[in-house]
This record gives sequence, structure tokens and C-alpha cells, in this order.
Amino acid sequence: MTKLKRSARLVDMTQYLLSRPHQLIPLTNFAKRYGSAKSSISEDLAIIKEVFELEGIGELNTQAGAAGGVKYIPMVARAAALAFIQDLCVKLASPDRILPGGYLYMSDLLGQPSLMNEAGKLFATAFAGVGIDCIMTVETKGIPLAYATGAELNLPVVLVRRDHQVTEGSAVSINYVSGSHKSLHTMTLSRRALKEHSRVLIVDDFMKAGGTIQGMVDLLAEFNAEVAGVGVLVESGEVESEQRLLHDYVSLASLRAVDAKGKEIVVEPGNYFDRW
Amino acid sequence: MTKLKRSARLVDMTQYLLSRPHQLIPLTNFAKRYGSAKSSISEDLAIIKEVFELEGIGELNTQAGAAGGVKYIPMVARAAALAFIQDLCVKLASPDRILPGGYLYMSDLLGQPSLMNEAGKLFATAFAGVGIDCIMTVETKGIPLAYATGAELNLPVVLVRRDHQVTEGSAVSINYVSGSHKSLHTMTLSRRALKEHSRVLIVDDFMKAGGTIQGMVDLLAEFNAEVAGVGVLVESGEVESEQRLLHDYVSLASLRAVDAKGKEIVVEPGNYFDRW
Repeated sequence: MTKLKRSARLVDMTQYLLSRPHQLIPLTNFAKRYGSAKSSISEDLAIIKEVFELEGIGELNTQAGAAGGVKYIPMVARAAALAFIQDLCVKLASPDRILPGGYLYMSDLLGQPSLMNEAGKLFATAFAGVGIDCIMTVETKGIPLAYATGAELNLPVVLVRRDHQVTEGSAVSINYVSGSHKSLHTMTLSRRALKEHSRVLIVDDFMKAGGTIQGMVDLLAEFNAEVAGVGVLVESGEVESEQRLLHDYVSLASLRAVDAKGKEIVVEPGNYFDRW
Repeated sequence: MTKLKRSARLVDMTQYLLSRPHQLIPLTNFAKRYGSAKSSISEDLAIIKEVFELEGIGELNTQAGAAGGVKYIPMVARAAALAFIQDLCVKLASPDRILPGGYLYMSDLLGQPSLMNEAGKLFATAFAGVGIDCIMTVETKGIPLAYATGAELNLPVVLVRRDHQVTEGSAVSINYVSGSHKSLHTMTLSRRALKEHSRVLIVDDFMKAGGTIQGMVDLLAEFNAEVAGVGVLVESGEVESEQRLLHDYVSLASLRAVDAKGKEIVVEPGNYFDRW
């Protein structure tokens, strides 16, 4: 690449860093890429770091030494996270979402990549320092959320299936009780999909009593893997605390009540801000 | 926001544009955001445009006039696309992917968000000027690819299910014949999910004879919607042309042969470059 001026360098370094979250990039990479001195690169990074912090986009962590470099850690600032969650609550509370049986139609929201990606950034913020090897979800509706989180944390996604597929090779299956219906289901995970002793972040779109997520926790035990955290987009706050199978999770929104007759939905922010 | 210097402005404008692909942003937005004159903003955009083009990240389209602004169109440069596809072919050809029955294990690749996002960028490049209202896929494995494409094109994703779900409301179901097995399956789409006369880009991870995709095409007809294009990550090149149900599609890789006995997989680039 031809030698770039600082202004052009700043643009390119910004896009380079943003497209490589949670990856350590040696300063020599940039120095070579632009034919610049490392000292100039360090000055550029200081400018980018300042803007990222000012705008609440994330942190730039610089590690000194031969094995050092710079790492972009996406972080959603508190005010932006709050605005996102409040907007999500308003969208969820729209009365035309009510379906027969008191179910909530959410597929239009789950179908918006930009909304999923922003939610993924919130989970990446919440679980940034936890030490995670991969993201897990069960098909189907949690998948975009899991990928968005994985993209921001630079981690692979492991997909639990409802049935054993010929394209998955040998697999481990378990039965689990869906908490809300007390019905028995099966979930299955390919033997190749998960290394032993992995630390896993479980992500899903909706949690009622937590039976499905508890199923994933049980499945992890079969792989000698452990839960590093649980993140859900929406939890049902209609479930009594003692009925909940799972107590340690992060939710963005909490569905308090669905009144199918009165056509009213009450949604509040979830527990996202409870711990930081 | 406090008045920013050019260097800081360039960093922030770059991240702002990159996170809003295919969205028209009025220059006054930037002028207000930074307390700068529009002429300064125009100069900044010229620098960003030059770098984006030089680095093969995409185009910045500026539209003049009162309703004008700037739009970032992600575009993968030819060389970068070729490098990605060649790397994908090498990964797919690894002999330990062969499963009983000659199936190919791809879940590790499909589980990498960064790889899916890059593939999505390639589809966004291929279908940038086609005029699309939404992306469609059928559960399960094509979902991350569909969302990646949707994110780059700033379009919603419509998800076809195998079974009718209580959380989807009233739905339209069709039967289709899976070309490779000649077996009959059902797919279903929520009434609310798709507006009439939508132009739809169908995305999937794998296509053999094309029965599943033909099913989605038939489903679109039920909604008076039309196919704007078809993109698949991997096509099976083992299918004879006359057996193929579908001829107009874009593929990134083509699986030529899987020799389970000799433990050999032959993968070639798909037809991605055939038309541009």
C-alpha cells in the first residue's frame, strides 16, 4: 500500500479496527500497512481511542512490548444502552403483537439485523470480561442474536438442534422439560461442535421459566463444558421467582403482562443494568 | 457534541457511516453533530470516499440537493472476494469433513460470525443494485448468512419455518419436493412476515438440486411477492444441469465431488464472478 497521510490513515485504521473486535493487532501491522513510523501509529491510535471513548463506541486497549498491540473492545455506553432498551420496550408493547393464546409476535423485531446487532453489542458489553470460548443457542429464533454477540466478541457460535441432522455427524442428545408447558423435548448437539471444558455464553430470544436454557446447561455438562453466562432478549416477568429454573442471567426486556382481552402489553427494562 | 477537530471528525464519521450501510445520511446531520460547516463535512467525506475506494471497502454515494446526503454502499473488491472464496474452498476441501453418506460437515464454518459476515458482504455486493425489499431464508443453517446479507443491505430478514409455530400467528404453508431425496416436506411463513409485491432475495447455505429454494419461490407466489435473486454459499456441482430446478443463482463455492472412500473432496469457486 502506498504511504498514506494521517487523515487517510485515521479513516483506514478506524475501519480496520471496527471490523476486527477483540483481536490483538500488532502496531507493526499498521506501520507496514501505511509505511509509517510506529510513533505516528501510536499518535493515530490515541486520536481514535479518544473519539471511541467520547462517542461511547468502545475501548482501545494498547498492550506494550514485543507481543503487544492494540485491541478494540466494543462497548455500548450506558446512555445508549438505556435508549436502546427503552425503545425495545416501546416496540414490544405494541398491542397488535398479541396472538391467540396470549403469545407475542416478535418475528418482525427479530428480523431486523440492525436491531439484533445492537442487542448483540449489549451482550458483548455485559459479558466482555467474563472469559468465554463460544456462544451457544438452540434453533431457531435466538440464532441472529447469538451471531451478533459472537461477531462482537469474535467468538464462534455453537448451534443446538431440535433433531439430529445427517449433516452434523455423531451427536449427543438430551431430553428436557419445557418449564412453561411441562412437556418433554429433545435437543441435540454435534460431537464436533464443542470442545471439552469450553466456557460457554448461552443466548436466546425469549425465556419463560427457563426450561430450554436449563436444557442447554444440561447439554453442556455432557461435554464437560461450563456456563459462562446467560443472555436473553426478553424474559417473561409473569413467571414467579420460585418457578424459575434459572436465576443468573441478563435480560434486556421483561414482559410483565399480556392482557389479550384488554389488548394491553406491559414491558419493562430487564435486569441488564442491575449489576453495572 | 463539542466541536471536533478534523482528525477526530474523520474517525467518528467513518464509524458512523460503516454502522449505517445503505442509509441516506443528510450532510446537515454531520454538520450539527460536529458543529462544523457543510463545506468542511464535504471535504471530510471526500477523504473517506478516497480511502474506502482505495481499500476496496465500498462506495460513498453523495446526492446533492435539499433531500440529498451521503450513503455508504458496502462493496467487496474483486481481489478480496477472490481471496475469500479461494480460502473458503480450501477450508471446505478438508477431508475430515466427510460424514457417513457422503455428507459434508460445514457447521464449524457456518458457526464463524466473521466468515458469515464476509460472505454476506459478497452477496450484498452481488445484489447491490437489484432493488430488494427483504432477505428470505428457511431455517436453520442459512440464517446467519441471511442476517449478514440483510445487515449489509440494511434490509429485514424473513424466516421461513419448517412447522407452524404458535408465536407466528396465521401462516401460509406449502408442500415442496426436496430434489435430492424426492421426499415431500412442508414450509410455512407467517402472514405478517411479508408484504404483497415484495422483491425478495433468497439466501441459503447449501443448494443441491434446488428443491428447497424452489419451495421458497413457490411460497413467494402465495404472497404475490417475487424473487429478486438467489444466493447460496455452496452449491453441489455433482448435480446434472438438467436435474437442477433452478438456474439463476449466485454461488460462492461449488462442491464438485465427495469421495468418501478415497477421503477426497473437490471444491471449486462458484459462479460468483461469472457476471461481473
